[in-house]
Amino acid sequence: MIVINFKAYRESFGRSALELAKLAEEVAEKSGIHIAVAVNYLDLPTIAREVRIDVFSQHVDAVEFGSFTGVVNAEMIKEYGAKGSILNHSERRMKLADIDFCITKMKALGLVSIVCTNNISTTRAVAALEPDFVAVEPPELIGSGMAVSKVRPEIVEKSVRAAKEICRKIKVLCGAGITGYEDYVKALELGADGVLLASGIVKAKDRKKALEELVGLR
Amino acid sequence: MIVINFKAYRESFGRSALELAKLAEEVAEKSGIHIAVAVNYLDLPTIAREVRIDVFSQHVDAVEFGSFTGVVNAEMIKEYGAKGSILNHSERRMKLADIDFCITKMKALGLVSIVCTNNISTTRAVAALEPDFVAVEPPELIGSGMAVSKVRPEIVEKSVRAAKEICRKIKVLCGAGITGYEDYVKALELGADGVLLASGIVKAKDRKKALEELVGLR
Amino acid sequence: MIVINFKAYRESFGRSALELAKLAEEVAEKSGIHIAVAVNYLDLPTIAREVRIDVFSQHVDAVEFGSFTGVVNAEMIKEYGAKGSILNHSERRMKLADIDFCITKMKALGLVSIVCTNNISTTRAVAALEPDFVAVEPPELIGSGMAVSKVRPEIVEKSVRAAKEICRKIKVLCGAGITGYEDYVKALELGADGVLLASGIVKAKDRKKALEELVGLR
Amino acid sequence: MIVINFKAYRESFGRSALELAKLAEEVAEKSGIHIAVAVNYLDLPTIAREVRIDVFSQHVDAVEFGSFTGVVNAEMIKEYGAKGSILNHSERRMKLADIDFCITKMKALGLVSIVCTNNISTTRAVAALEPDFVAVEPPELIGSGMAVSKVRPEIVEKSVRAAKEICRKIKVLCGAGITGYEDYVKALELGADGVLLASGIVKAKDRKKALEELVGLR
Repeated sequence: MIVINFKAYRESFGRSALELAKLAEEVAEKSGIHIAVAVNYLDLPTIAREVRIDVFSQHVDAVEFGSFTGVVNAEMIKEYGAKGSILNHSERRMKLADIDFCITKMKALGLVSIVCTNNISTTRAVAALEPDFVAVEPPELIGSGMAVSKVRPEIVEKSVRAAKEICRKIKVLCGAGITGYEDYVKALELGADGVLLASGIVKAKDRKKALEELVGLR
Repeated sequence: MIVINFKAYRESFGRSALELAKLAEEVAEKSGIHIAVAVNYLDLPTIAREVRIDVFSQHVDAVEFGSFTGVVNAEMIKEYGAKGSILNHSERRMKLADIDFCITKMKALGLVSIVCTNNISTTRAVAALEPDFVAVEPPELIGSGMAVSKVRPEIVEKSVRAAKEICRKIKVLCGAGITGYEDYVKALELGADGVLLASGIVKAKDRKKALEELVGLR
Repeated sequence: MIVINFKAYRESFGRSALELAKLAEEVAEKSGIHIAVAVNYLDLPTIAREVRIDVFSQHVDAVEFGSFTGVVNAEMIKEYGAKGSILNHSERRMKLADIDFCITKMKALGLVSIVCTNNISTTRAVAALEPDFVAVEPPELIGSGMAVSKVRPEIVEKSVRAAKEICRKIKVLCGAGITGYEDYVKALELGADGVLLASGIVKAKDRKKALEELVGLR
Repeated sequence: MIVINFKAYRESFGRSALELAKLAEEVAEKSGIHIAVAVNYLDLPTIAREVRIDVFSQHVDAVEFGSFTGVVNAEMIKEYGAKGSILNHSERRMKLADIDFCITKMKALGLVSIVCTNNISTTRAVAALEPDFVAVEPPELIGSGMAVSKVRPEIVEKSVRAAKEICRKIKVLCGAGITGYEDYVKALELGADGVLLASGIVKAKDRKKALEELVGLR
């Protein structure tokens, strides 16, 4: 499982977002590797309709339908075809009670939750909430170009062990600095079920090449 | 000018949102009154494409393009056809510096800003930031069924005067409890340039009838 | 263990706060029951100096010393004699990463952490962070006058079990609606190590009597 | 008027805070210049009791007395002898409605409000709320060692003019990078009523010397 977070980069918004999602779809089908994309709210409806790979939201708010302004809840992304959502990304940290609310809600709706964490203890805490995925990303390595699976392998290993000890069926992603096939394979060797990445693909000069390298097609 | 805030009601999301926007368009064209709708991020692309009336976002985040997750900025809503955005709604209060950032940004992009306030002094403050519209809504009347233009006419009058004293060309909306034509006309008599409303239309049993009543077609 | 949260009530601020802390001290010594008070930042220095019972802060910010304005960190409350702090109270919910930061920091400083939660799953999550105490308080019962240990005994029981399953040495408090001795004893019978309460004592007409009743001296 | 924001530096907390406040008092009395200090909540009670110069809080929360945890409101700082509070510091930005609430409340209590802003338009907006002081601090110069009054004199001049145009009796401070007498005098020449500074004094090796230099005693 590879999740590409499109973030709010100009290079992965609007028409470029759809192009990148299509590339991800192509590479996923060629390689047989499960690739998902996490896109902006405004891009989500089109992308979810146009590609066959899983499309995630980057966040959902911890609210039901009701008298709220400027929010997006779990039901809403489901209605537009999202497979699930990232929660608690380092750029969008959530209150504990809200993470719990969203995981519970998404489970009831059949949506997949990917909850980000920053270290081993928060990974344990999130595992106790039993989301589908926990994605550990040491903040100091995000966007650094140094892959967590290479420079801090013990964080990945210990996070996997800690998470599965608390919730056997949880899947663990790791992120931060991941760019190439080697980083990805190393993550799997350390016990991770996949990786979460962003700039390594989105900001690449040749994004198709970057995607193919990531999955070992080059 | 009448702005209908669709909020996060189930009745004004997805397919129902598009239907309501179409009704608003129909009533706007029949009555010659300027009606705009403020819709959910996920609904915005479709609605902006499908209707001829102005479509607003309910909020934008005070960020540029970049390494942010789960945000929507002013450029993004513009790219999808929004006319502008509500800012600082009582259900989504913003920091002063962020309101200023968004107004400035939206002005540069040719987007229309409608900034909500809760009383006369915050109306003055917002007027000093020179958005296109300020929309004063006394929080205690929101969703109360008691129209601000009827039960607190002095707030509307004084807000209009205070806002225009600071920024001559600003337009002033009033909101909270507005439902029928009488409330709307009363607001205009008090000097307002229009009204902002939500549940009065969205939650009406017969929404077409409610819209027609609002503009005096019935 | 009984923790009295003084909150921001006028009745438990300033001179009245010191009086109430003295009463708590007196009743603690007479009954032999461990009573602690969680007081306002401004009251903390005096109260920590004037009473022999444990004095807690109601919150600490997840920051180190540095270029921050209007914050209070763990070192600061320690320097003024606090025994520890409440974290993540329902009226001051924290981001998961910040709860983790504070627990870790407080542990290093020898401060006691009492982390509030709203249900069984967040209790499990907090237990995974290994604070000294977790205090479960169903939000719908806070200030309701209906004791959680009486009307929702299963939440207390299951929270105790869930928390200790994840972290054997953690202590569990329960809160919401607790006022009298019966509620307190019932909480202990259900496996809790103590209770967290506020208005039941702070807002009582006769606070000494309320305290004595709480510990069974009347 | 010179306001020294002690922030959350270790060097200006606890015993060191009291020492620095005493130095400020000494230099204020020797120079005849009005110096005030803005201190941590925990330090405020002692410092307000021990020095004759004005003591400010660094922030207050926009709440009344009541069922709130971990907050400090305007009444509370008044009870402990504060002269007023900084509001909306760049490290503690507030929502517009909350700034308005606090200014109104503090005015009713006879407390002095110093509201920080980041540019000319937010200075205008704050002036419209009629606090006692507005303190403009371009964020890019904070802690830079480059004095706003020297490197961006036009911001100071225009802010003063803009603020007084909206609220004749408001006083204007400027901040960011201010360290020596020259910066201070330059600020006054540009029309400011004083300066707001922090690290220039707090982090100085010889704080007495730094204070004396600031007011021209050396």
